[in-house]
Amino acid sequence: MSELTHFNNQGRARMVDVSEKEVTKRTAVARGSIRMRPDTLTLIREGKIGKGDVLAVAQVAGIMAAKKTSEIIPMCHPIPLTGVDISFEEKGEDTIQVEATAKTTNVTGVEMEALTAVSVAMLTIYDMCKAADKGMVLEDTYLVSKSGGKSGDYRRELED
Amino acid sequence: MSELTHFNNQGRARMVDVSEKEVTKRTAVARGSIRMRPDTLTLIREGKIGKGDVLAVAQVAGIMAAKKTSEIIPMCHPIPLTGVDISFEEKGEDTIQVEATAKTTNVTGVEMEALTAVSVAMLTIYDMCKAADKGMVLEDTYLVSKSGGKSGDYRRELED
Amino acid sequence: MSELTHFNNQGRARMVDVSEKEVTKRTAVARGSIRMRPDTLTLIREGKIGKGDVLAVAQVAGIMAAKKTSEIIPMCHPIPLTGVDISFEEKGEDTIQVEATAKTTNVTGVEMEALTAVSVAMLTIYDMCKAADKGMVLEDTYLVSKSGGKSGDYRRELED
Amino acid sequence: MSELTHFNNQGRARMVDVSEKEVTKRTAVARGSIRMRPDTLTLIREGKIGKGDVLAVAQVAGIMAAKKTSEIIPMCHPIPLTGVDISFEEKGEDTIQVEATAKTTNVTGVEMEALTAVSVAMLTIYDMCKAADKGMVLEDTYLVSKSGGKSGDYRRELED
Amino acid sequence: MSELTHFNNQGRARMVDVSEKEVTKRTAVARGSIRMRPDTLTLIREGKIGKGDVLAVAQVAGIMAAKKTSEIIPMCHPIPLTGVDISFEEKGEDTIQVEATAKTTNVTGVEMEALTAVSVAMLTIYDMCKAADKGMVLEDTYLVSKSGGKSGDYRRELED
Amino acid sequence: MSELTHFNNQGRARMVDVSEKEVTKRTAVARGSIRMRPDTLTLIREGKIGKGDVLAVAQVAGIMAAKKTSEIIPMCHPIPLTGVDISFEEKGEDTIQVEATAKTTNVTGVEMEALTAVSVAMLTIYDMCKAADKGMVLEDTYLVSKSGGKSGDYRRELED
Repeated sequence: MSELTHFNNQGRARMVDVSEKEVTKRTAVARGSIRMRPDTLTLIREGKIGKGDVLAVAQVAGIMAAKKTSEIIPMCHPIPLTGVDISFEEKGEDTIQVEATAKTTNVTGVEMEALTAVSVAMLTIYDMCKAADKGMVLEDTYLVSKSGGKSGDYRRELED
Repeated sequence: MSELTHFNNQGRARMVDVSEKEVTKRTAVARGSIRMRPDTLTLIREGKIGKGDVLAVAQVAGIMAAKKTSEIIPMCHPIPLTGVDISFEEKGEDTIQVEATAKTTNVTGVEMEALTAVSVAMLTIYDMCKAADKGMVLEDTYLVSKSGGKSGDYRRELED
Repeated sequence: MSELTHFNNQGRARMVDVSEKEVTKRTAVARGSIRMRPDTLTLIREGKIGKGDVLAVAQVAGIMAAKKTSEIIPMCHPIPLTGVDISFEEKGEDTIQVEATAKTTNVTGVEMEALTAVSVAMLTIYDMCKAADKGMVLEDTYLVSKSGGKSGDYRRELED
Repeated sequence: MSELTHFNNQGRARMVDVSEKEVTKRTAVARGSIRMRPDTLTLIREGKIGKGDVLAVAQVAGIMAAKKTSEIIPMCHPIPLTGVDISFEEKGEDTIQVEATAKTTNVTGVEMEALTAVSVAMLTIYDMCKAADKGMVLEDTYLVSKSGGKSGDYRRELED
Repeated sequence: MSELTHFNNQGRARMVDVSEKEVTKRTAVARGSIRMRPDTLTLIREGKIGKGDVLAVAQVAGIMAAKKTSEIIPMCHPIPLTGVDISFEEKGEDTIQVEATAKTTNVTGVEMEALTAVSVAMLTIYDMCKAADKGMVLEDTYLVSKSGGKSGDYRRELED
Repeated sequence: MSELTHFNNQGRARMVDVSEKEVTKRTAVARGSIRMRPDTLTLIREGKIGKGDVLAVAQVAGIMAAKKTSEIIPMCHPIPLTGVDISFEEKGEDTIQVEATAKTTNVTGVEMEALTAVSVAMLTIYDMCKAADKGMVLEDTYLVSKSGGKSGDYRRELED
């Protein structure tokens, strides 16, 4: 079984040395869902039809957060992101699924960038709708897939 | 039903004007869970017994993220946080529950600060264990309670 | 005539001591214009009709930048902004006018926050359209008015 | 005519994927002017003769802002800047022209870094002189030239 | 003897709850020295006589760092600084002493802001002179005095 | 003797152009000491035995600060850090020595990253213990060694 590599020989956290790792193209996809009251989802949807667009703000927030990942997550390496995209999909009458894709050409991967983008996009939706619905829940957030790098590709087995 | 207040008369997002709101003491508590393989939880627990402490890093990350909330969430007001605390509790053999409490004396509340602290603490756990377990899932994250402010107190009805 | 107050007795820059100043409600309004080719303005306008909305991104960028003002402008005091709003108006066939309003209840004013919001909103429009039109020009950016504080209100005499 | 490339297939903003673009040396030069009362310009000039140097602070602010560009402009890629320089030139009795040069060796260009450096240098001059002159105007700010990259070189035709 | 107050009942770090503390005017003064080769000090001094001014850059860096203190020091409260000043004094032929004063009107003190300003000003001097002298040493950095707050005033007994 | 390279031909600060420098593997090691009352060191040591761990927080703070170096030090180039590690060693009954190692593969070195990590780790120790001991002193902080780059390797002659 793999060890936790984020600790030095004093047993303390360190930013792992990746100097010898190879530069490759890397992609990661993450996904999360935010569940709300159906009338809250209606409000968001109507906002889209007019010009007030909760999801447009969440999209910008998620992309900007992806760029801040190494500032927010202590042991993350700073990464020259070459692309970030976020999309939204309604699931049933009460849930929005957020999916983020992050890309780089670098010695380390972009899993944390994709997961951070998803989390912050959902937190932004919460923030913008919380006057109407404080009971919203950020549901399962996980890595969907990653490619590139020595450890090989990863693809989560999804139920739906 | 409440309206979305984050939009101006052009239908675009704005940071709501809170100049006329009253300064009161405010507290918010948020909670989330991260589920992993049982052997990953064992690794984290052993790290605690030695000196390598995943949760110590997650704690620092969550507290620092609470202070960054208004930088990360576009329409959040900057808030003079007067206290942040985070605690961890194991749930069964495969889950860690994270709870964050944020406090301020201010015109607006600290729900987003508590939720951001929880999300970033969980993302940090993911980051530090992902070499061992890429399948970890950030499960339900939600507001447990808030107090202070004109809109009154809120307490989520929890099942457990 | 007023002196430059941002210098200490070694003649070096300092962040002026405002400990003795009174807390009052303060507002500032700033304005700027970005001129482009008419077909670039058409592209932006069409983007609004669809969902791709350059101005929605510029709005978020401007509001987030207002919150970053004291990080960006060296001698600016950190300010608990209580509200920021930005609006856009087309002027003729080739120009978008950006207006930002910033508010606080504080010992110092928010002129720099309003001006920074306008500048960054315009820079964001440039960024998002530069593949189509590198010749865009950020035209006159200025303070329209401020109120609150001991130095009294200010209102620029505008020609149009 | 070129399209706006900053939007995904949901019509929302994205950070464009530049993974396949070539790494080349890139330079961008931007310019802006700030107009003030002649006696304000005299104050700045005298500051230079003594030690209180408005332009020294503006220079540092502009360079630091260039490094923050991808944090401030939502869809900008993070860029390993290899050099930034800013110079000031008096134009007539009431205007200071600011010129910034930014360099990188990267897959994307540095136009936004140069424009951001100019804008923030001018905002800093405004901030440091606003006690004396609230009527200062940030005049035309534009890209002077860029070189490097597939889209080729650009040079603005300047009147003066 | 006082206890370490930065830990919660799980023994983990927290941002201490200061909600009940009183708002008072607070000042802190910190000091540090950087020792270098005498010819390096001459270079800095000559830079001042011309226009290239290492200390002007260090001053701006120190002031901006004071504003970033709560971002850099994990358990520091965010503080509405009301003033920061930094001064430099040559000590003998090879040392520059840096002194920073920070002020606020708040529930917590500004010791860390003053100490951070001094440290970053010295690091900036190092950075700007390191091509000439890599052997520079940041010598004793300490709190000189603080006033305001319930714990009362503090004044270090200085030898010189 | 070397000149100060951080100034342009107007005698003002600039971020030196490193576009033509070669990409090599680079390492830097820096060291500093913080002296305190013996009973303060005992408190820290006991914290380690329980779970409250001042040094764990200082470690995270130092690593995160290394990543922020180019934001904090005005003329520093942004650097893709490939590794950061910090270790602590008790010296006698009243001193903790902090050592940081920073690595990159880049056109410029990481001396400032290592020095910043050490300074911020020490400031964090100060912050977390200042309720018990305001008299702590950050003693000599210096570069121990650097390797990589055209200017060759550097190793300080250490007395102990």
